[in-house]
Amino acid sequence: MRILLINPNSTRSMTEQAHRSAERVAASDTQLESINPTSSPASIEGHADEAMAVPAMLAEIRKGEARGIDAYVIACFDDPGLGAAREIARGPVIGICQAAVQVAMNIATRFTIITTLPRSVPIIEDLAEAYGAGHRCRKVRSVDMPVLALEEDLAHTEEMLVQEILKARQEDGAEAIILGCAGMSELCDRLKARTGMPVIDGVTAAVKLAEALVGGGYATSKVGAYDYPRTKEAPACRLVDAS
Amino acid sequence: MRILLINPNSTRSMTEQAHRSAERVAASDTQLESINPTSSPASIEGHADEAMAVPAMLAEIRKGEARGIDAYVIACFDDPGLGAAREIARGPVIGICQAAVQVAMNIATRFTIITTLPRSVPIIEDLAEAYGAGHRCRKVRSVDMPVLALEEDLAHTEEMLVQEILKARQEDGAEAIILGCAGMSELCDRLKARTGMPVIDGVTAAVKLAEALVGGGYATSKVGAYDYPRTKEAPACRLVDAS
Amino acid sequence: MRILLINPNSTRSMTEQAHRSAERVAASDTQLESINPTSSPASIEGHADEAMAVPAMLAEIRKGEARGIDAYVIACFDDPGLGAAREIARGPVIGICQAAVQVAMNIATRFTIITTLPRSVPIIEDLAEAYGAGHRCRKVRSVDMPVLALEEDLAHTEEMLVQEILKARQEDGAEAIILGCAGMSELCDRLKARTGMPVIDGVTAAVKLAEALVGGGYATSKVGAYDYPRTKEAPACRLVDAS
Amino acid sequence: MRILLINPNSTRSMTEQAHRSAERVAASDTQLESINPTSSPASIEGHADEAMAVPAMLAEIRKGEARGIDAYVIACFDDPGLGAAREIARGPVIGICQAAVQVAMNIATRFTIITTLPRSVPIIEDLAEAYGAGHRCRKVRSVDMPVLALEEDLAHTEEMLVQEILKARQEDGAEAIILGCAGMSELCDRLKARTGMPVIDGVTAAVKLAEALVGGGYATSKVGAYDYPRTKEAPACRLVDAS
Amino acid sequence: MRILLINPNSTRSMTEQAHRSAERVAASDTQLESINPTSSPASIEGHADEAMAVPAMLAEIRKGEARGIDAYVIACFDDPGLGAAREIARGPVIGICQAAVQVAMNIATRFTIITTLPRSVPIIEDLAEAYGAGHRCRKVRSVDMPVLALEEDLAHTEEMLVQEILKARQEDGAEAIILGCAGMSELCDRLKARTGMPVIDGVTAAVKLAEALVGGGYATSKVGAYDYPRTKEAPACRLVDAS
Amino acid sequence: MRILLINPNSTRSMTEQAHRSAERVAASDTQLESINPTSSPASIEGHADEAMAVPAMLAEIRKGEARGIDAYVIACFDDPGLGAAREIARGPVIGICQAAVQVAMNIATRFTIITTLPRSVPIIEDLAEAYGAGHRCRKVRSVDMPVLALEEDLAHTEEMLVQEILKARQEDGAEAIILGCAGMSELCDRLKARTGMPVIDGVTAAVKLAEALVGGGYATSKVGAYDYPRTKEAPACRLVDAS
Repeated sequence: MRILLINPNSTRSMTEQAHRSAERVAASDTQLESINPTSSPASIEGHADEAMAVPAMLAEIRKGEARGIDAYVIACFDDPGLGAAREIARGPVIGICQAAVQVAMNIATRFTIITTLPRSVPIIEDLAEAYGAGHRCRKVRSVDMPVLALEEDLAHTEEMLVQEILKARQEDGAEAIILGCAGMSELCDRLKARTGMPVIDGVTAAVKLAEALVGGGYATSKVGAYDYPRTKEAPACRLVDAS
Repeated sequence: MRILLINPNSTRSMTEQAHRSAERVAASDTQLESINPTSSPASIEGHADEAMAVPAMLAEIRKGEARGIDAYVIACFDDPGLGAAREIARGPVIGICQAAVQVAMNIATRFTIITTLPRSVPIIEDLAEAYGAGHRCRKVRSVDMPVLALEEDLAHTEEMLVQEILKARQEDGAEAIILGCAGMSELCDRLKARTGMPVIDGVTAAVKLAEALVGGGYATSKVGAYDYPRTKEAPACRLVDAS
Repeated sequence: MRILLINPNSTRSMTEQAHRSAERVAASDTQLESINPTSSPASIEGHADEAMAVPAMLAEIRKGEARGIDAYVIACFDDPGLGAAREIARGPVIGICQAAVQVAMNIATRFTIITTLPRSVPIIEDLAEAYGAGHRCRKVRSVDMPVLALEEDLAHTEEMLVQEILKARQEDGAEAIILGCAGMSELCDRLKARTGMPVIDGVTAAVKLAEALVGGGYATSKVGAYDYPRTKEAPACRLVDAS
Repeated sequence: MRILLINPNSTRSMTEQAHRSAERVAASDTQLESINPTSSPASIEGHADEAMAVPAMLAEIRKGEARGIDAYVIACFDDPGLGAAREIARGPVIGICQAAVQVAMNIATRFTIITTLPRSVPIIEDLAEAYGAGHRCRKVRSVDMPVLALEEDLAHTEEMLVQEILKARQEDGAEAIILGCAGMSELCDRLKARTGMPVIDGVTAAVKLAEALVGGGYATSKVGAYDYPRTKEAPACRLVDAS
Repeated sequence: MRILLINPNSTRSMTEQAHRSAERVAASDTQLESINPTSSPASIEGHADEAMAVPAMLAEIRKGEARGIDAYVIACFDDPGLGAAREIARGPVIGICQAAVQVAMNIATRFTIITTLPRSVPIIEDLAEAYGAGHRCRKVRSVDMPVLALEEDLAHTEEMLVQEILKARQEDGAEAIILGCAGMSELCDRLKARTGMPVIDGVTAAVKLAEALVGGGYATSKVGAYDYPRTKEAPACRLVDAS
Repeated sequence: MRILLINPNSTRSMTEQAHRSAERVAASDTQLESINPTSSPASIEGHADEAMAVPAMLAEIRKGEARGIDAYVIACFDDPGLGAAREIARGPVIGICQAAVQVAMNIATRFTIITTLPRSVPIIEDLAEAYGAGHRCRKVRSVDMPVLALEEDLAHTEEMLVQEILKARQEDGAEAIILGCAGMSELCDRLKARTGMPVIDGVTAAVKLAEALVGGGYATSKVGAYDYPRTKEAPACRLVDAS
């Protein structure tokens, strides 16, 4: 099966990190490709960044459809453009936030999400609510670091995350931790080892969920809201496709 | 005060209809401008259309900021890109769905929304939920017509809406009706007259709410999630700005 | 347009403060009148005070209807008798809590309300919930001062509010603050200036919302729950009307 | 123990019916008194009626406190002034809607409430929600009869209720029925017999719950929101007390 | 009336404590029996303990039905097997958690529950939510002691509970306290006396509620989900019945 | 990886059907075993059946732990004993209801569940709510057939399901269908083909999800509520283990 992992921002090193995380867990018969648009914000920190990133991401999905991709993983924790992507794709489209929340709800009764900037906290809270976590999501915490700073000093990033994980366990009563940014994915194993807590990386979760859905024969419903977009004059689409 | 009404799709006649509806209620000291991007889908029917329309809409808001616009009305009932727009604007940004829901919650205890295509029903249900309507929103109904068909045979459109309004009163126990598409705004008065029901057009509601917020001295909070986007390499932004 | 602001308690200085706050933002063509019943509790602190204040407030609305008032603002943050008032009035009736919550939901993703006595906290939490704020209302805080004490030492009141606002920003992640008592309205600008936070005074919010609703042609729905009360023997009504 | 049943409207025949219903189930050592204010609306149909009825009802509770009443039952299904009453009383105050909902949640997983006028439907829906019924309350139905008409043609009333009960079972999947008006209480046994459904009368439920709370040694918490009202100049109180 | 109190664990001393608590409040005409299965876990701390305890508890209810028991109290705060018990019994079955929550919602607007082990916190949170407490349940706290340790050093247990009660009042704004374990029931009066807070013991609450339901003529609905189990080959039932 | 599918009822033919459904989708390197306890109810229709089935099911999980099972699927749509099973198992335990709901939330915005008996409707509604489906679960429908009757006349069962699926699409606006009983799993493909709707069988969904979780390195959190049960005298456990 062919899975396309799309990092919706234009930072190649993040795409590569997500690809390595995905590769480590992908099944042997999964062909995994990872890309990022070049015409996107360098990181996605807030609704405006999301909005600017989505058209190019959708263009990649259209190209993926043309070459027979079976499922897509959107490797940004805000799950930008998830509904739009599902309208365009035949197969399943998995958001890493939704995937991580679903994994957490299978292995723990309460969990905490740790993200980058404080401004992302309400966005992720709303996602967790929309995905049905309710009070199972104890808290969304932030380490107060920009996305691109995560990779600059990995030792510092790890230290900050360890501290928040321990607080989540102690203060929130969290039984599992979700890493709230694709840029944290390669720290997952070390964080588990250092804290003794189950730590869920959304990239890993989404790749396994994508394989599961394709393997189970599930495709995106084309009855109702996720039906293909109706054909219309859409100059912007052509414009962005060309970029 | 200067209010910019943005129709996020590229259909000029819809922009003009919304402008006329807005003009009828705007205060005498309100300077109302209405525009639509030319590089947008012709109508917005679903998440993918929304996603393709938003970057050009945000570009208009950036231009509006440069020339001193005090508040913005997004004249599409899906409230596309509302959070993103609020990050970019200094003054208030009003979505016509949120505005209509807030008006309804002041004048009635239960209401029904009537939209165009069935595929928009879940989108609008989720918006009403996110805006806090809960069970006050009895139902989202659809007349099963594409957005652009609304204007083609106005008599037929009106007839379909009258029938749904009467069902909403009878079957849903609705005490007020919200028109779930900017393209229905000019029918509002006739529908009120024919059905005896309060009928709320989101364009009207949003313009008055925008005036109220500016008049009360309220601006978008720049503390937290609606803070201005952080400056980053964002090639797509430039690209779409140029279109 | 004629707007009647009713302070449901009998403390004239609070009515005057609310009137001054309202006047500062009212449109030039708004005729604003402000009154308070003389036969009401001196302040409204809890459900019993509310209950004792409402009949006289409704009597004022009946008189207002007789002389052509277009909209009413109930200037007490518990929104006492809001449903009852809407049954009696033809035009819109705006509660300052509901108005403030609606403004907050347009300009911020998360907010905190600061009220007077701890006993009012659950009442206001329930109102915010009923108005659809959900988890957008981060917390209801109290400065632990009786309503009438607010005016006695304004410098102290201001200091207490500044401290709670800073805590709301730091501990709650609030992006905007709502002042949870009409008696705080004139401190609003100083609190904004001192804390750098958006601060919403319900009186201001309600007056602007009342103007918006009247200007948009909206009246209270007389279909269903807000229909005029059915005529019945109601000795208590006459009694209180006479007071 | 002494229980005071207060019918907050001024219709003596309804008080007498509620008293008979209560007497039939009261424990042998319960001293049951039933009263209604004379200065109240003849029936309570909507928020305005509620508001006009509450001050006189609170006056009765104050008198009850003076003579050692142990618990109060408010015999109107809108539970008017319940919070206010709890502030004034030392012992428990039971609303017949809340009592009926609590009984239903012990004996069934899903129930339907049947009330009088359509305008009361949203009021009762909001109460059921506030009492935590959520989706356990399948529907609030109305027989579309004014409260005072219930007693005029009892055979017709019974017929209408039987029909709604059968619809509730068939269409709503209701497992129990709550009668949504104190004026229906004496029909309870006949409705059970004719439909084979569990039918809950709030008056009965509330009296037994009042006995249970007093018997268990529970009193209204005076820590927080239900603490006694703070002493203040309150001319309206005196006025209504005197009525 | 005959009420059977079942402690679903096999620790006789806990059954005796619950029986003493129940006896103190039971009406003079209530015949109270208390039992515990011998083939149950010694305490119920988590879902697996619950699951192992329920079949033997159901066997006791079947025996109770055979000898004419009118109502049952399940004296474990997790309310294990409550739905199953209701299917088997003709009369009401009361869980001590649900009973305590219902009492709390009549006498206070906000409450906190204090239980034994941290692992029980999510279980009880979910119960409070299912019973409709919503945000009225401020917090579920734990004293971090195993159930069987409660009785070993009562002075220490009392001290720990006093401390949590004071924190609940101060930090949670709780107006009443619920003791979240049947093994705490005899401490209830001392805790009230020492803290000045209303303290609710579920055993007491449930016994009084059981009397109320039987006295009001209420039985478990046999229409729908609580209907008697359909007769089937069920070897395990026979096996456990025999134990 | 080794996955153990447990049908918690004692009907061998249902176990075999579930096994065949699971085998069709299992990955080539998955070793799938399927069992059912012999000491269980023949079918699970309601809470009492669930309760009687769980101890023997837990005994199978204990045995599975001893022989190195990596993940478990509980093949009954009520997800009986799911929390208890998770306490006992080291690896993931997947319930077929939760799995089906999670799949549905990835491929559709609204879905309907179709189950067997009306008495199971509230149970499944509560599960869907607990798993976070909220209003995404449009309705739980029943074909009004006992579980064991499903297999007796497969043509009739299929016909009934087709009719309900078409109603779900038309009346509920469902975009996907979940089969609400393990005994329907082999009809899944025919139902998809005949109705053109996405149809989700929980057994399939759960097996793929189990593989995904194991493949992603996820195990049940042993921090908090799903920690192993504390060791105690538990005679019933031994008794049932021996059966």
